[in-house]
Amino acid sequence: MHKETLEDIGEKELINRLGKFMPKNPVLDDCALIKTKNKNLLVNTDSLVENIHFNNLIISPKDLGWKAVVSNISDLLSSGSKKTIGITISLMLPPKTEWLWVEELYKGINKALRKYGGIILGGDCSKGNQKAISITAFGIQGQLHLRRNASKPGEIILTTGIHGLSKLGFMAQSKVNFENNVSLNQRLISKSIKHFCRPKVDPNFLNNLLKTRSNRRLRRIGCTDSSDGLFQALQDLAIASKCKAIIDYEQIPKDKNWPKGDKWDEYYFFGGEDYKLVFSLPKKWAKNLSTLDKNINEIGYFTNGEPLVEFKDKNKSQLLKNAPFKHF
Amino acid sequence: MHKETLEDIGEKELINRLGKFMPKNPVLDDCALIKTKNKNLLVNTDSLVENIHFNNLIISPKDLGWKAVVSNISDLLSSGSKKTIGITISLMLPPKTEWLWVEELYKGINKALRKYGGIILGGDCSKGNQKAISITAFGIQGQLHLRRNASKPGEIILTTGIHGLSKLGFMAQSKVNFENNVSLNQRLISKSIKHFCRPKVDPNFLNNLLKTRSNRRLRRIGCTDSSDGLFQALQDLAIASKCKAIIDYEQIPKDKNWPKGDKWDEYYFFGGEDYKLVFSLPKKWAKNLSTLDKNINEIGYFTNGEPLVEFKDKNKSQLLKNAPFKHF
Repeated sequence: MHKETLEDIGEKELINRLGKFMPKNPVLDDCALIKTKNKNLLVNTDSLVENIHFNNLIISPKDLGWKAVVSNISDLLSSGSKKTIGITISLMLPPKTEWLWVEELYKGINKALRKYGGIILGGDCSKGNQKAISITAFGIQGQLHLRRNASKPGEIILTTGIHGLSKLGFMAQSKVNFENNVSLNQRLISKSIKHFCRPKVDPNFLNNLLKTRSNRRLRRIGCTDSSDGLFQALQDLAIASKCKAIIDYEQIPKDKNWPKGDKWDEYYFFGGEDYKLVFSLPKKWAKNLSTLDKNINEIGYFTNGEPLVEFKDKNKSQLLKNAPFKHF
Repeated sequence: MHKETLEDIGEKELINRLGKFMPKNPVLDDCALIKTKNKNLLVNTDSLVENIHFNNLIISPKDLGWKAVVSNISDLLSSGSKKTIGITISLMLPPKTEWLWVEELYKGINKALRKYGGIILGGDCSKGNQKAISITAFGIQGQLHLRRNASKPGEIILTTGIHGLSKLGFMAQSKVNFENNVSLNQRLISKSIKHFCRPKVDPNFLNNLLKTRSNRRLRRIGCTDSSDGLFQALQDLAIASKCKAIIDYEQIPKDKNWPKGDKWDEYYFFGGEDYKLVFSLPKKWAKNLSTLDKNINEIGYFTNGEPLVEFKDKNKSQLLKNAPFKHF
């Protein structure tokens, strides 16, 4: 008799089932929360595995170290962390790994920590068949609680930047042959490789949110990061907040040289690893924020209805049906 | 030109080199410390990798989950954690892994948490070629600060129990053929398998330490756990505290059916995974504690001198020269 494997059930169902073992179902959010008397700590774990998330041909160990830190800090920010305390690093490495590789990885890790704050608190290192880097990051919860389940019908949906670039950078580094009829701009390729190898987050985001808040009683904001792609982020918000996301395709910010076509729309919505924030605000707050920070764009709104993602222009709906099923 | 690999430099040198990237060299202790205003948090990460630390033939997924939690709680206790807050779990699993395996693993994890306190706070799950479980555990620092570097010359060395059993349990589960001339007691084998599969820690240890303290100003205690073996624990204390450990072979507590001979002494001192505490106290405190708790034994003392481990009986010194070099 065939026994059910992780491949059979898929990633989302696995996450659902694991959630049942946890008293507060923290898998529904980007970070776990540890409550102490004065401060609440945010904790996040993120892993990068060789030949799944990276390989030596497409990213240097120094860039990989940077990226491993940034992917964790992105999750902390998306929960409203006002300060990164530090990280612990759990490494799995084959014995044939060169010391130089490990040294470069740590240089990249420390470079990102110098940029965004925090120190290496500790960690461990084990033998294994393939390389894996698991980082647990600790931050201090700021006064705004950013959570996946805090979006409300009527709120404007915003993002902190352009999507799809990291996916294009990954394909360029992997020497993927693009369709002949697309002539890719060299500036766009270089920019995309930079986005893939050295993603950035915006630590001023929280301050700008606070600056533009009109009502001090507003403390809970619907937010997540787009590490698994813009579509996934929108869907996660919709499901956790139990409302429908309506996206205006025309409002979505793209690089000026981003090619047109269904394939490129797919890279844009499903690419992942862009580490932008996807969130929703009451109209006035959204207006104030996007006026203050020119990188922030309104891309749609939440409304009452089924917890899913739709386009305002029904002609674009086909696109979302191409959403790739997440095999484990 | 041959480039230096982790295999070349060995585990201890790797840990030394990684320590240089950390501002407070936390690798010298079992846990990292996060300071907040009221409470200090202890954080520990420990990983178990398939075919390195476990395989399906020698331990069930339920026992493995239990053991992964206990190995972390042991580290928290050895730093003086008075309460386990919770854990985050980072899993790496091949897609062919059966769901049942994961479910059993989580049952074992929750069983250990029910016994010793704490909840699952969150985690992540990635694909990989081999199974790996990395747990990060959070505890609250109690008033006694147990640290590797706090032992002092003149203090008595103690352990919370018998060593070597987990190693014997591992060998029994691995169907190792023991020498013909040793007839192993069946009770000892069963007990050892239990020690290997379901190791226990003693959460009353800290309370008993506090109860038997004669001087309230004594707050720092030299302590570590014996997850890497009794010898390694003694050596770690000696090196971090910069003093010499003298061990009295005759005082070491053994199971009544533990066989005699050099091989069995090696299993005892280098076996590992017994998760007992190895620590040192001023004479009077040591006496009071070992009177209160019959599982605790005085096994030697620290003295001024080179940071290493010696036997009181010089005839036993050969044993320590057999210390296996830790290849990565």
